[in-house]
Amino acid sequence: MVTIMRNLKMTLSFDGTDYSGWQRQKNGVTIQGEIEKALSKICNKRTLLHGAGRTDAGVHALAMVANFETDSDVTRSTFQKALNSILPFAIRILAIEEMDEKFHSRFSSISKRYLYNIETATIQSPINRLYAVHIPQKLSIGTIELCMEIIAGTHDFASFEASGSRDKSITTGRGSVRTLYEAIIQKTGETIYQFEFSGDGFLRHMVRNIVGTLLDAGKGRTTVAEFKTILAAKDRASAGVTAPAHGLFLKQIYYT
Amino acid sequence: MVTIMRNLKMTLSFDGTDYSGWQRQKNGVTIQGEIEKALSKICNKRTLLHGAGRTDAGVHALAMVANFETDSDVTRSTFQKALNSILPFAIRILAIEEMDEKFHSRFSSISKRYLYNIETATIQSPINRLYAVHIPQKLSIGTIELCMEIIAGTHDFASFEASGSRDKSITTGRGSVRTLYEAIIQKTGETIYQFEFSGDGFLRHMVRNIVGTLLDAGKGRTTVAEFKTILAAKDRASAGVTAPAHGLFLKQIYYT
Repeated sequence: MVTIMRNLKMTLSFDGTDYSGWQRQKNGVTIQGEIEKALSKICNKRTLLHGAGRTDAGVHALAMVANFETDSDVTRSTFQKALNSILPFAIRILAIEEMDEKFHSRFSSISKRYLYNIETATIQSPINRLYAVHIPQKLSIGTIELCMEIIAGTHDFASFEASGSRDKSITTGRGSVRTLYEAIIQKTGETIYQFEFSGDGFLRHMVRNIVGTLLDAGKGRTTVAEFKTILAAKDRASAGVTAPAHGLFLKQIYYT
Repeated sequence: MVTIMRNLKMTLSFDGTDYSGWQRQKNGVTIQGEIEKALSKICNKRTLLHGAGRTDAGVHALAMVANFETDSDVTRSTFQKALNSILPFAIRILAIEEMDEKFHSRFSSISKRYLYNIETATIQSPINRLYAVHIPQKLSIGTIELCMEIIAGTHDFASFEASGSRDKSITTGRGSVRTLYEAIIQKTGETIYQFEFSGDGFLRHMVRNIVGTLLDAGKGRTTVAEFKTILAAKDRASAGVTAPAHGLFLKQIYYT
């Protein structure tokens, strides 16, 4: 008997508030862990999920991508319905697609897009508290925009990489060099601003570290010239703090 | 010694998700109950709060109003800071104002404005799940708009009043007659629609009962002519179901 293995791509959205991030853990409820439990129940055997990347505890996703291999003959539509009926409403499977065996959610991806929300009102609206970081002061958006022009393009982003996060012996060759195709800030509400970043890859904590440093610039603590020096330093210690997780949304992952 | 009683007006916002509504209860955590506990701690004596109205469990508020009398000499600004430091982030005090003794948050109000959010995507975004009701189908917005024109203005809204909710012996004289100044629906996102109602007063469950009945019209279950008949019937049994609480937001309360 020949077992045919299928390779299924899953697009999903989640509210990360109550989860210890994407990656399965022995202790701690995670997105990957919850979906693998549901998948294993549906497939009637342990089924593992390969994510396009890890997200930290508290980070949200509008369209995360993962894939799993299965010899089950459950249809795509039944997989989606069964998963959504087992999973909590904080995790929703948006689509399931049949892929060839070569597809891998992480290795096949060519770029990603992230959003980061901040609210500058004196008192934060309770409705936004889980999805926007509260910065109760007026920011110089012009200064932030000038800094964002500096980071757009191809750079060594070592200053914005979580320290000790990467085993340099298994580097892909590009080290901490990445390309940001887009880095913009937009006003999306009376006191809400949204950062948007797209790029060919993101180092660990890269978006949150960039946002933390951009906010220093917006508050007048860091000049545009100093921001340029921070990027050039290739040293995490030169940059600002890691902005909180709950403002961050993985918006989209692109494939060829 | 003459004790000077101050009358303070409080404007507040809350995420109603985890609360058993506005009104204090023996069992059950409520917005009024939580704020009264905090106020009583600050004033060092039991201090009661008079709300502009009750909100049901799960209903949210962008700008609820309440007032309280106190002989405390704590400044307005200290009251606001102390309350916000004691209260959970799901409840935020936006402003405190000094009023004359005649001001009462409920009796002095002249009109109110409510919002109601629905999401029509096939799968609801986890990020909206606590703030918009999921109606996974295409709605005829044109039909809904025609029905909203019918309810705008002064009418007896008995068909949309929660049954058994009002002691008819203590009616103010206007019974279930109310005036809706505005009743509109707007598209606020790709698959998000927002109802907005302003009026001189709202009966218990009135917005939710109107929305439930408008959704029947949008789904093609009720014609515009039937909607007209439902309003004219002055009978709760003729109208649609009460729409869920979590789509509803008290947006504003107006005073002269």
